[in-house]
Amino acid sequence: MSKEITSRSEDYSKWYNDIVKKAELADHSAVRGCMVIKPTGFAIWENMQKQLDKMFKDTGHVNAYFPLFVPKSLFEAEEKNAEGFAKECAVVTHYRLKTNPDDKSKLIVDPAAKLEEELIVRPTSEAIIWNTYRDWINSYRDLPLLINQWANVVRWEMRTRMFLRTAEFLWQEGHTAHATKDEAIEEAKRMQDVYAKFAEEYMAMPVIRGVKSESERFAGADDTYTIEALMQDGKALQAGTSHFLGQNFAKAFEVKFTDSDQKEKYVWATSWGVSTRLIGGLIMTHSDDQGLVIPPKLAPTQVVIVPIPKPGEEIDEVANKIIAGLKEKGISVKYDQDPKKRPGFKFAEHEMKGIPVRIGIGKRDLEKGVVEVARRDTKEKESIAVDGVVNHVEQLLEDIQNNLFQRALDYRNAHITSVDTFDEFKKVLEEKGGFISAHWDGTEETEDKIKKETKATIRCIPNDAKAEDGKCVFSGKPSKRRVLFAKAY
Amino acid sequence: MSKEITSRSEDYSKWYNDIVKKAELADHSAVRGCMVIKPTGFAIWENMQKQLDKMFKDTGHVNAYFPLFVPKSLFEAEEKNAEGFAKECAVVTHYRLKTNPDDKSKLIVDPAAKLEEELIVRPTSEAIIWNTYRDWINSYRDLPLLINQWANVVRWEMRTRMFLRTAEFLWQEGHTAHATKDEAIEEAKRMQDVYAKFAEEYMAMPVIRGVKSESERFAGADDTYTIEALMQDGKALQAGTSHFLGQNFAKAFEVKFTDSDQKEKYVWATSWGVSTRLIGGLIMTHSDDQGLVIPPKLAPTQVVIVPIPKPGEEIDEVANKIIAGLKEKGISVKYDQDPKKRPGFKFAEHEMKGIPVRIGIGKRDLEKGVVEVARRDTKEKESIAVDGVVNHVEQLLEDIQNNLFQRALDYRNAHITSVDTFDEFKKVLEEKGGFISAHWDGTEETEDKIKKETKATIRCIPNDAKAEDGKCVFSGKPSKRRVLFAKAY
Repeated sequence: MSKEITSRSEDYSKWYNDIVKKAELADHSAVRGCMVIKPTGFAIWENMQKQLDKMFKDTGHVNAYFPLFVPKSLFEAEEKNAEGFAKECAVVTHYRLKTNPDDKSKLIVDPAAKLEEELIVRPTSEAIIWNTYRDWINSYRDLPLLINQWANVVRWEMRTRMFLRTAEFLWQEGHTAHATKDEAIEEAKRMQDVYAKFAEEYMAMPVIRGVKSESERFAGADDTYTIEALMQDGKALQAGTSHFLGQNFAKAFEVKFTDSDQKEKYVWATSWGVSTRLIGGLIMTHSDDQGLVIPPKLAPTQVVIVPIPKPGEEIDEVANKIIAGLKEKGISVKYDQDPKKRPGFKFAEHEMKGIPVRIGIGKRDLEKGVVEVARRDTKEKESIAVDGVVNHVEQLLEDIQNNLFQRALDYRNAHITSVDTFDEFKKVLEEKGGFISAHWDGTEETEDKIKKETKATIRCIPNDAKAEDGKCVFSGKPSKRRVLFAKAY
Repeated sequence: MSKEITSRSEDYSKWYNDIVKKAELADHSAVRGCMVIKPTGFAIWENMQKQLDKMFKDTGHVNAYFPLFVPKSLFEAEEKNAEGFAKECAVVTHYRLKTNPDDKSKLIVDPAAKLEEELIVRPTSEAIIWNTYRDWINSYRDLPLLINQWANVVRWEMRTRMFLRTAEFLWQEGHTAHATKDEAIEEAKRMQDVYAKFAEEYMAMPVIRGVKSESERFAGADDTYTIEALMQDGKALQAGTSHFLGQNFAKAFEVKFTDSDQKEKYVWATSWGVSTRLIGGLIMTHSDDQGLVIPPKLAPTQVVIVPIPKPGEEIDEVANKIIAGLKEKGISVKYDQDPKKRPGFKFAEHEMKGIPVRIGIGKRDLEKGVVEVARRDTKEKESIAVDGVVNHVEQLLEDIQNNLFQRALDYRNAHITSVDTFDEFKKVLEEKGGFISAHWDGTEETEDKIKKETKATIRCIPNDAKAEDGKCVFSGKPSKRRVLFAKAY
């Protein structure tokens, strides 16, 4: 089975698509740019959702649901936001089909059922939500309003890739309203923190926390806080963003409140989101030429048990005992008893699907009182005494989680390169890839020129960037600190 | 606060809308027929989802996600299904907006961005899913395929009511594929059972299990199994349906498999769904003129603690002890410390929102070592010793859950009336309402005529209907058993 996937060195992009397909994470659909998320892929998303949802609730947020459609007049109210999304909107113009008079088996759009006002399928929900918040917010007592929504959104992207960029995708979008600017900024940063913590502790994916340059900001934001990850091919992935929206939406939708000083003021806002794109990041952070590698904390199946060569009374008995023990510890486990497949075939299949731990139970091993435990990340195998296997696996899952993070962190840290000349910049970008730490003069003009010449963009100004006088790597103009450039997904 | 809601006897429909609004379950939106589900309403939906999802997984199903859009050519492939939904479809025709040349601050649909093929916003997903299943199913080894999806769907209804009938709604839709007819029928009935169990054990809403008459079937189904509930105004609510789809979709989308006998055969199918409509059913089954009543198993907040008249060191201490004890038992509890509101105001507010149990803690009561425990369903109050309050509340929540079910069951059972003449039929329908058990000749013609004259429809042929020779209440023709008629939502 593993023979069927392209190696990373041969064609990284093809390798990625092979993994998505062979690990049965997603499939193309009949709709341009839209994917079908298959059960295994969706189970990873469910695990992500469960954890993120808990983290949102622990920080005081509640869930709600707003309409899929945004009337055009609301959509265009916040101009920058509208401009940012207008070119990639699915637009509903009619509300009925009718039988084609020329071919009774076919349907056509009924021209008599044209909408008075077109509806935009939400690419993001600020417009519809802020139009609603106007009615919900009157007094400072109504603030802060801390709401999250799990939803599907549509952006009509021209070049799509499964999970990373699809016309429809699943995400969560937080939309909060605050009485003061400081409180809104604090919230936006808090959610950046939540995302970073989730990425590192659950996805085992190290991220750099920073702020976007003006040209890379969310359309309608005053500031965009981001978490940036590094993929194995040296390209960056924007994994989550949290926006301080200032009073832009409050002003566009006239959302005011009476403050405790009895004065009427515009509300301050944030929004923040992560999407099924994270699954793309997960794949490209950990997987290898044998297939998917998933950190145990997000793996739908954490342990698989394979009888060697096939089930038998004694093997089943040991397997069931181990299964009971693992389940008691909250570890998800499958017993692959399928008699139609040979163990070697199963091993390759489970490797492809990224199951973190495999336990092989063979008759000869059982005579010695042991089973074979294999870990997916390093592919190491060990003989473990049957009696100790449950505790061993529990510890092993933790080790794998930590090892995956450390491995990705080492790779990421080895791929942050400081450069001081543009020649060096281009050389590193081409030959090594990764993040390039360089001085920048702070102008959009320079950013644009660098992007045009190298395809690299400013990923972020890291939160921990030190003050350092220098000269812009491109223009030679003075700069106060380094920023991170990279080619990005 | 309670003064602001209309009583049921005065105007049932207005009472319903008042509850939805005052209990902060949902709000109208700027989009025709679409609602905003507010945090309290959504929290009920989350509780429903959590339990249903568990029940689906316990019966072997997995979740996946399919595209929001259905290309028109796929939509029309299964003719009956297409015909059933064509008149209420939102249609995407364009994928871009552009600046209005006559008014730079406005956007217009870009006529250059017209889609070659229109996309239907899914009213249900059989078409897109069966088009996908064709690639997933080759052999009997791939069957059964047991998939569920949590999603939003859009049906352009002309007359909408919050939760009960909205243009966009949230639901789950199961779509399964089987090797044999019997297995598919068994699955459809199994899911009807799951729905009935959920309705009765969690929503405390008694339901009648039955099968739909041909004219009330899902478009594209060979049989529709339904659960039917009775609302307090004597109207029925179809609360969930499970369809045996025969081979209709398999034939429309050419989904065949090689069976173990090496023969190629069409697959057998089911689909089944429940939606946010259940929240409407929940409201109308239990609530009263003081506001919402929610069964404890689905209540976002099960217990609220109110200090009387206001918090103080001693009261806080007792409250915190009770809170800790309740949380340990997995009971959700809020401490309403807001000093700006008087206890009486809070009581009315918590009644309006349907919190099942209220604990009042007052200084004078504490001197006697007791607190006041009030139950929302009967509005009874008791003095309970502080030390025993946690155990008491745990038992009380169970009692409330059971009482709500029993009360609804008694009402429902008192509102199933057997009639043998059409005059009686009309009289009962007008004066008493509820289900009418009557003989029917089995023809669509009679069904239609009864509907036109009385607005009553056949809700179902109950699973437990006994063979009984009789004469059709309308036509006088022979009939083999009684069916249930009612006016319905």
